[in-house]
Amino acid sequence: MIRNDELRIPFVTMQELLKGKLTGRGFAENDASLSARLFTESSCDGVYSHGLNRFPAYIRNVDRGYIKADEKPKRMLHHGVLEQWNGQLGPGNLNAWFCMERAMEIARENGVGCVALRQTNHWLRGGTYGWQAADNGCIAMLWSNTTGNMVPWGGIDPTIGNNPFILAVPRASGHVVLDFAQTLYSYGKMSQYLKHGELLPYMCGYDSDGNLTNDPESIVNSMRALPAGLWKSSGLAIMLDLIAVILSGGKSTMEINRQDYETGLSQVFIAIAPHSGIYGETRETLVDRIITNLQETTPAGNQEKVRYPGERTLKIREENRKKGIPVDPEIWKQVQEL
Amino acid sequence: MIRNDELRIPFVTMQELLKGKLTGRGFAENDASLSARLFTESSCDGVYSHGLNRFPAYIRNVDRGYIKADEKPKRMLHHGVLEQWNGQLGPGNLNAWFCMERAMEIARENGVGCVALRQTNHWLRGGTYGWQAADNGCIAMLWSNTTGNMVPWGGIDPTIGNNPFILAVPRASGHVVLDFAQTLYSYGKMSQYLKHGELLPYMCGYDSDGNLTNDPESIVNSMRALPAGLWKSSGLAIMLDLIAVILSGGKSTMEINRQDYETGLSQVFIAIAPHSGIYGETRETLVDRIITNLQETTPAGNQEKVRYPGERTLKIREENRKKGIPVDPEIWKQVQEL
Repeated sequence: MIRNDELRIPFVTMQELLKGKLTGRGFAENDASLSARLFTESSCDGVYSHGLNRFPAYIRNVDRGYIKADEKPKRMLHHGVLEQWNGQLGPGNLNAWFCMERAMEIARENGVGCVALRQTNHWLRGGTYGWQAADNGCIAMLWSNTTGNMVPWGGIDPTIGNNPFILAVPRASGHVVLDFAQTLYSYGKMSQYLKHGELLPYMCGYDSDGNLTNDPESIVNSMRALPAGLWKSSGLAIMLDLIAVILSGGKSTMEINRQDYETGLSQVFIAIAPHSGIYGETRETLVDRIITNLQETTPAGNQEKVRYPGERTLKIREENRKKGIPVDPEIWKQVQEL
Repeated sequence: MIRNDELRIPFVTMQELLKGKLTGRGFAENDASLSARLFTESSCDGVYSHGLNRFPAYIRNVDRGYIKADEKPKRMLHHGVLEQWNGQLGPGNLNAWFCMERAMEIARENGVGCVALRQTNHWLRGGTYGWQAADNGCIAMLWSNTTGNMVPWGGIDPTIGNNPFILAVPRASGHVVLDFAQTLYSYGKMSQYLKHGELLPYMCGYDSDGNLTNDPESIVNSMRALPAGLWKSSGLAIMLDLIAVILSGGKSTMEINRQDYETGLSQVFIAIAPHSGIYGETRETLVDRIITNLQETTPAGNQEKVRYPGERTLKIREENRKKGIPVDPEIWKQVQEL
């Protein structure tokens, strides 16, 4: 567990600080509010790497003009429940939130909605938009491409992205949300291990000389992270990039690699709204039984119990809501000074 | 490479033999034709475990009444582009083929089509329906649940399925099709290693005593295969089961586990038809460039080159079409005697 418990900040305090920094950078009031909330929620949910810890880089990219604070997504094409939007290099988290909302709007009317987004920026925590969908009673499948940060199976150079893939299922007693990049650890997570001087639990990348390693520094430097499920995760990353590119009309990892900075990403947001009047309330009970059954599975020797995707998040969220969000004092100071 | 090159059978010969066995079991002429073709194509594509080698078990299950030769899927519910069908325990490959056709029909009109199927049988090679979609110009995402044959992350018992997930992208010069179960090797593949007395290349399951092993016999017996990407593939399997169950109204792996035999499966077929007049022909060129770029990536020391998902299939297909499909003489004889 990588966390810094020296300093805990109340949710509202963090959100207000971030909001102020954003309005100061030209974000409209409601955009600043939403962005600040999403950053704070990510930290509150324990995804520190994509919450507060990422805020200084976000502001830096606004200052450099990479993230255009006042741009809004624009619809380019549509065919039935399939829509293509241009993110116009606006804030990645706000663009993604907007597209998930739009996908749900289509889904509520037609069962399914599929919104593809091009020319957007890093969406920060992908899971955010899975929770967003589940909070609104929708099943969701969404993904983003990234810059090249993973080796394809059989290759040695980081030419493909670790393209995070998020799946969400709503449930009254706790949504089931899976948020996974195709490398075993995200670069954010590897940086946390590095910062704490810890080795990664698995050999999950090559160093610059092509040797397998679990040293986070070597992998962060070489960008040669291995696909988590070897040829399977490599294949999945390639497919997700291709589908995102075709549907969004945007850039592929191949093209993003040629830029100095990771921007102009392509994403897909699929919402499915099984009409409750039709699909039945008994489904909810069954989902509960599947989850309970999973939790009651015999744990492996070194494990306490088997958890469902999203279970740990809810626990951390509750704790951090109560005790305050743990922050790295250095980063907290840095954000205050932005 | 696991293959038996002693005997090669022409495509048409195999297809005709299988078709005859099926009409003999009460399959209608066109159903027998299609099923025989799908079995033969799987073997021709090099997926021997889900082609001819599986045919005797298929016939056995027809004879036992587990697979009902004359049942057709029936639509139960629909909401916009989302439909729910009951497979009525008909032949899994024919049910899946039908649902993929139906999803494409909806998608051509509405951009996306999503058909969920319950009460079906093993669909044999899942990739079949990815190729089917791509052959018709559609992007596809489809999956099936299975009986419990994989341990959840943190657990020791095979309570979750390895739920194969297929993604397909059409391309004039060779479709891109990924077909992957959530274990590193399918049980079909592990049985092939076992038959040839070979160890698996990776430690990818527990034996009955809970020790990690690469002995296919131990894993086939214990059913304790590990998720390929550890907690990630475990999570993905759980999500795919949940979504399939909610949309199809069918059984989850939890319920399938209580049966003596793997039947009553739940599946989802999503087709996406990016209208070519709208989405543009330039996409095709870009997809080609992405694939070429991938193939030109520096290979790892022990690899010849980096391949795209589906590349090897096309090569094997071509070779087997030309030289005949390699068969295990014992299985060939067994099928002839069915």
